[in-house]
Amino acid sequence: MGMTMTQKILAAHAGLESVSAGQLIEANLDMILGNDITSPVAIKEFEKYGFDQVFDPGKVTMVMDHFAPNKDIKAAQQCKACRTFAYAKNIEHFYDVGEMGIEHALLPEKGIVGPGECIIGADSHTCTYGALGAFSTGVGSTDMAAGMATGKCWFKVPEAIKFDLRGKLNKHVSGKDVILHIIGMIGVDGALYKSMEFSGVGLASLSMDDRLCMANMAIEAGAKNGIFEVDEITEAYVKDRVHRPYQTYKADPDAQYVNEYHIDLSQIKPTIAFPHLPENTKTIDEIDEVKIDQVVIGSCTNGRLSDMQTAAEILKGKHVAKGVRAIIIPATQSIYKECIKQGWMEIFIDAGCVVSTPTCGPCLGGYMGILAEGERCVATTNRNFVGRMGHVESEVYLASPAVAAASAIAGKIAAPQD
Amino acid sequence: MGMTMTQKILAAHAGLESVSAGQLIEANLDMILGNDITSPVAIKEFEKYGFDQVFDPGKVTMVMDHFAPNKDIKAAQQCKACRTFAYAKNIEHFYDVGEMGIEHALLPEKGIVGPGECIIGADSHTCTYGALGAFSTGVGSTDMAAGMATGKCWFKVPEAIKFDLRGKLNKHVSGKDVILHIIGMIGVDGALYKSMEFSGVGLASLSMDDRLCMANMAIEAGAKNGIFEVDEITEAYVKDRVHRPYQTYKADPDAQYVNEYHIDLSQIKPTIAFPHLPENTKTIDEIDEVKIDQVVIGSCTNGRLSDMQTAAEILKGKHVAKGVRAIIIPATQSIYKECIKQGWMEIFIDAGCVVSTPTCGPCLGGYMGILAEGERCVATTNRNFVGRMGHVESEVYLASPAVAAASAIAGKIAAPQD
Repeated sequence: MGMTMTQKILAAHAGLESVSAGQLIEANLDMILGNDITSPVAIKEFEKYGFDQVFDPGKVTMVMDHFAPNKDIKAAQQCKACRTFAYAKNIEHFYDVGEMGIEHALLPEKGIVGPGECIIGADSHTCTYGALGAFSTGVGSTDMAAGMATGKCWFKVPEAIKFDLRGKLNKHVSGKDVILHIIGMIGVDGALYKSMEFSGVGLASLSMDDRLCMANMAIEAGAKNGIFEVDEITEAYVKDRVHRPYQTYKADPDAQYVNEYHIDLSQIKPTIAFPHLPENTKTIDEIDEVKIDQVVIGSCTNGRLSDMQTAAEILKGKHVAKGVRAIIIPATQSIYKECIKQGWMEIFIDAGCVVSTPTCGPCLGGYMGILAEGERCVATTNRNFVGRMGHVESEVYLASPAVAAASAIAGKIAAPQD
Repeated sequence: MGMTMTQKILAAHAGLESVSAGQLIEANLDMILGNDITSPVAIKEFEKYGFDQVFDPGKVTMVMDHFAPNKDIKAAQQCKACRTFAYAKNIEHFYDVGEMGIEHALLPEKGIVGPGECIIGADSHTCTYGALGAFSTGVGSTDMAAGMATGKCWFKVPEAIKFDLRGKLNKHVSGKDVILHIIGMIGVDGALYKSMEFSGVGLASLSMDDRLCMANMAIEAGAKNGIFEVDEITEAYVKDRVHRPYQTYKADPDAQYVNEYHIDLSQIKPTIAFPHLPENTKTIDEIDEVKIDQVVIGSCTNGRLSDMQTAAEILKGKHVAKGVRAIIIPATQSIYKECIKQGWMEIFIDAGCVVSTPTCGPCLGGYMGILAEGERCVATTNRNFVGRMGHVESEVYLASPAVAAASAIAGKIAAPQD
């Protein structure tokens, strides 16, 4: 029986000729990731079970991104625990304040993850790396601990849903709108423990940033992972980043899918997820006036270079509406620097935005833009659960950078203008 | 009997021909300041006493700088209370995220405070504006409330200490070293409820940024205020900023001082205040190896343009030591923007620093760089009390931007090199 992309990667990493959905396998891991919230828990587990060394110091990554630069004493203590462990175990990829970025932007950017690899991360949005044609999924801190010690992890081979993409995105429509459209269509449990497999001629119109954003939000449909077929765009992206041999995997023609969707990208409109679930989507033309207090453009979902460019193009020569706080967070130091070089940083400041150093910050209610009672935020982040960004009576509207920037100017949810 | 600069300003604002030390007076206020921590308390008092309007919406300033962009729900609620009040009362100078900066850098920069004026602020470092030849002092939130309602405040006219400055600062020595030297000399209660009055031919070598830094830390010697004689440098600074008539006041030749110090600026060396008091000073040549974990360059004391320039000149082409987090915080949006224009922002990023949006943040243990147990920080801030920047077992070393930048590179407290 044929295999999907995900199944092929898992089979290869389990040393098996083939696997099928539902099968329990033990796979060799190419990379294990943790951040400043999850790593301290994993480190405690690691030490509790008496492990001494990590299985391979080159295959563990820790990124201090959630509450760093430290937002409080607890965050400081957590980062210190990670730092101490990373130095003692010679962890090769330890990213501290000044070197870092948001993990799921940083790892692809630095070539720490690549096509065909098998990656776990103690962070739910680890599924992002599926954009590169990798199998990548979020795990708990205990799995992270075991992964660091043994280099292996158990998986139940997932069933798959196929997304056959065709057509081309219109102006001001991006991967964020596509994935919000899909989640709106299938629901937040629409892909529960399944792999979302993206392929089709439409891929040619999706940039790596679009794909990273889409794979990132696979978890918001409950998926085990999201994965994109590797094409020329992927190869061009990894060419100067991944300096080791890698394999690419295409699905067999007779691979099994529990469902198959055909999506014409040219039909996707700017899409917004209303509170309090990512599936509560409306297209921009369906929305009545929604006044807002804050805009956040950033996160592991939409803090990449093209997201910054989109925001800059829309904000250029404009000013955010009175009463709106606009917070822009480039996802990594190199994106931050490129924003300076391109003149976008000045555009943001002139427009009345503030620009934060890379951090997850407000996305998960950490800091750098928490909401008060009754406040509304348009955010390019990935979750709009009750209280996610602050007070339980606050509201988060998920949108693309284009919609977010346009909304900042209008003071209400608004379509980007030509 | 002759009057000091401070006494002359207080007399003028009390409508009296003269005042003398110890006298209780009621003065008319030119500006009342609050921030996102102190204003909500003042607003509650204001409303509790049934006041309806502020005495003059043009003479109240509120700056959201301490925990904004909001670090947590409480901070969000506090900013919201300020915003609601400011909009309802038509407060002219309300600075929110995107327009703001650290209050004591912002008010002089925007010409909201000027020479000869009488200013209170619900923040202890309100004494900063003495650099402009104003009487300016920190008060509690209740005084702020009464000030907003009536435009007046009671004061006990302070005794004075005269600082007669001569000579010229050496390279890599700045106002910060001078004020740390002075506090080391007279102690943290050396000027208790007194005015520190700076004059002399040495003024000519002190930039406005030097003076703002020195006046800012008058409170660290316990002073009621610090004040600088107005000269051509002051006039040049306020020329394009203060668009209203103002008076300047020189001390009478027979003004009374409880003490008088003669300070030769050419003898001042880079000075560092060791934990846990600003008076615990050592000059750079007296210091053994002190390894550090973090550097903060910013705050109302040293986040101004020349501070950024100093840091950039020292960090250019260098990299911060492994294990050191270097956090740079331009004090206002316009300083931030100028850092971009001058290319300093790229220097900071290339050197492995992070650059934060303007905020008080770490200085008072707010966020954006809190210390863990046992960690040491060299900071250009103003207080190094136990636990000020985080864990009660952490340490803060107060220094100039030059020493802080050099220390970031060295990984230990270090002298700036030529």
